[in-house]
Amino acid sequence: MASVTSVSPLAPAAGFPVLPQVAGVRFAAAEAGVRYAGRLDVMLAEIAAGSAIAAVFTRSATRSAPVLWCEECLAGLARQQAGCFAILVNSGNSNAFTGALGRAAVAATVTATADLLGMPEGHVFVASTGVIGEPLPVERITAKIPQLRDDLSMDGAALAARGIMTTDTFPKGAAARLDLGGVAVTITGFAKGSGMIAPDMATMLVFLFTDAAIDCALLQSMVSGLNDRTFNCITVDGDTSTSDTLIMAATGMAAMAPITAADDPRAATFRAALHGVMLDLAHQVVRDGEGATKFVEIAVTGAASDTDARKVAMSIANSPLVKTAIAGEDPNWGRIVMAVGKSGAAADRDTLAIRFGPITVAQDGQVATGYAEAAGAAYMKAAELVIGVDLGLGVGTATIWTCDLTHRYIEINADYRS
Amino acid sequence: MASVTSVSPLAPAAGFPVLPQVAGVRFAAAEAGVRYAGRLDVMLAEIAAGSAIAAVFTRSATRSAPVLWCEECLAGLARQQAGCFAILVNSGNSNAFTGALGRAAVAATVTATADLLGMPEGHVFVASTGVIGEPLPVERITAKIPQLRDDLSMDGAALAARGIMTTDTFPKGAAARLDLGGVAVTITGFAKGSGMIAPDMATMLVFLFTDAAIDCALLQSMVSGLNDRTFNCITVDGDTSTSDTLIMAATGMAAMAPITAADDPRAATFRAALHGVMLDLAHQVVRDGEGATKFVEIAVTGAASDTDARKVAMSIANSPLVKTAIAGEDPNWGRIVMAVGKSGAAADRDTLAIRFGPITVAQDGQVATGYAEAAGAAYMKAAELVIGVDLGLGVGTATIWTCDLTHRYIEINADYRS
Repeated sequence: MASVTSVSPLAPAAGFPVLPQVAGVRFAAAEAGVRYAGRLDVMLAEIAAGSAIAAVFTRSATRSAPVLWCEECLAGLARQQAGCFAILVNSGNSNAFTGALGRAAVAATVTATADLLGMPEGHVFVASTGVIGEPLPVERITAKIPQLRDDLSMDGAALAARGIMTTDTFPKGAAARLDLGGVAVTITGFAKGSGMIAPDMATMLVFLFTDAAIDCALLQSMVSGLNDRTFNCITVDGDTSTSDTLIMAATGMAAMAPITAADDPRAATFRAALHGVMLDLAHQVVRDGEGATKFVEIAVTGAASDTDARKVAMSIANSPLVKTAIAGEDPNWGRIVMAVGKSGAAADRDTLAIRFGPITVAQDGQVATGYAEAAGAAYMKAAELVIGVDLGLGVGTATIWTCDLTHRYIEINADYRS
Repeated sequence: MASVTSVSPLAPAAGFPVLPQVAGVRFAAAEAGVRYAGRLDVMLAEIAAGSAIAAVFTRSATRSAPVLWCEECLAGLARQQAGCFAILVNSGNSNAFTGALGRAAVAATVTATADLLGMPEGHVFVASTGVIGEPLPVERITAKIPQLRDDLSMDGAALAARGIMTTDTFPKGAAARLDLGGVAVTITGFAKGSGMIAPDMATMLVFLFTDAAIDCALLQSMVSGLNDRTFNCITVDGDTSTSDTLIMAATGMAAMAPITAADDPRAATFRAALHGVMLDLAHQVVRDGEGATKFVEIAVTGAASDTDARKVAMSIANSPLVKTAIAGEDPNWGRIVMAVGKSGAAADRDTLAIRFGPITVAQDGQVATGYAEAAGAAYMKAAELVIGVDLGLGVGTATIWTCDLTHRYIEINADYRS
């Protein structure tokens, strides 16, 4: 089992350790002044020819121009396989809800990148994060592409992770080293998300790289499946971005025979390591949730189905009443009963049990014998909480990670004007 | 068309005008000390024999013992029609998630009321609102029933409206007088909801009375249908109570032949007046939403279906990012695009239009030509806002009313400890 290293300490002052190199991938970042001067706001990744690319995107019906372009690229990869790949990302402007102008902006940055780096346009993935509805200042970005190309470095991942930040309070990175049939392989990833200043929109971007050799369809299947168990299991405020993008590249530069079948024992090893990296990044996004002071795991068991368990967990995790109670360190289990009741999932009051960490708070439809409010209140003072709910109906389970809802969330999203 | 009189001014200092009498209904309220001393916290309504009763309840899977009892009563009315009716309500304790003890508490209060007022137990409706998970202090309530019976008065509706308040900042009442085929008829209603102090749970209670003579099944059909267009169209924080209860009684004491068919022209007149009273009360609940400083109408048109329109309107109304932007008087239409996108309804970015009151902000998938941010910002300063969204796809419509999300909401729900 590969050990996952979280390379983004919670204290921003502690700095950002170097993310491990991945053979076949180089990075650069630059200050383009997309919205603010003097900060890294453009990132370029160059990925070796022959790499396998997998990706997942927001399911929003109003997704941004860059997302629509990336979906097109991904669909076209089977037709056009020769040539390197690139990922060009800017912060400061999401190029979302910008109509024909937005499509033209994507085309201009894609063409400039493809020309300068010598690759097909369909191999240039783009992502944008930041203010919505304003035209993307294309020239400021394209003007920086020559410099980005010249600066490309295998050691550039940490800089790239900084280049995609908007109001994140720390860069988010994670990596794993694993052994695949005697060959040492690396997975490196970074992400941004969950910090914002009005009128910016929370967007999550995730980029993952490995030198493992793995079939493209198998990689896509792993990424999609793991995404449902990691990034799709976190919520800060229940608001879904127009720009969420996750792209993974496997360069195949490790000295190994490619993994082409799901039942290859190395596939399970690789999947487990990738799961660890993705989960670590997902948790970092929640820890940096707007105004968050608590990291909360909602663990639901005993549901009639996994779907029902997820409904219950999400209903609890997105309930403003539950989230404000957690912020106030109030062991208000009545609000959890409420959130179970409104979830739409099958539930029976008289088989419901609730736990705060190791403490059984309620069971069989009423407060647990021997539960003392003081014990619940003491537990709620911790920075990391586990709220367990057992519905007592079946074997369905789900785990969701979230944060609390504080004054700081209101400040970030209401007090600062656009 | 009957004019509806809202009898609860927004300024609590302006007092509470007397709600009009309804022949066949008497009210009383008392201080029972359920949770706090020195405040009205028990209300009794006595309703004449032969009245038609209609009701709707929360659809929560964890609904309270009183709600379960009321559902049983309602189902049994066809079997047991002789005798008066009563509604007994307490604030301070919701008798929810109290297990067998909760059922026993309901039985004790129902038996006491039925005995003292001389009616079948199945005619005694009960409702409780307040703290969850604590045993109901039954004796404090039953001890007050003789006094409540002695105090019953046709003029008692205003006092009763006060008796069901928890942390509401003003009592909520509305009434209509209408002409049904030459006969003067009255509808009087009152409600509570949307104010709370942790660990209390927001619960909405609504009681409506009329002297009109109307068939019970027809009344139930009207009440259910109108509930979907009034109380089911408001949201403060998307959190659904375990105790929501609406009960309507029609005494039939007006000198009129009963309305027994939906195509009776008087049915439409009555329905319109009842709609007005219910909508007025629903709006009062939103205006008293926790921490609310804005009253917001979300009007969605052009959806593929009414169901889709409702999904979009609710997604906007419950979005923390939209609600905090409104609190900050920020014309942040990008967040409305986001909420449309995540709603799950069919939407096409390139046909989407957004209006702030009379101002067209965005259309055809981008910011509207001539839209000035200053105009949007000026509009957002109003206390009452209309946000219009046209999806440009079909003829589906929905209107939802909500309020903003402010620091005060966090204070009410996090800062005060249980």
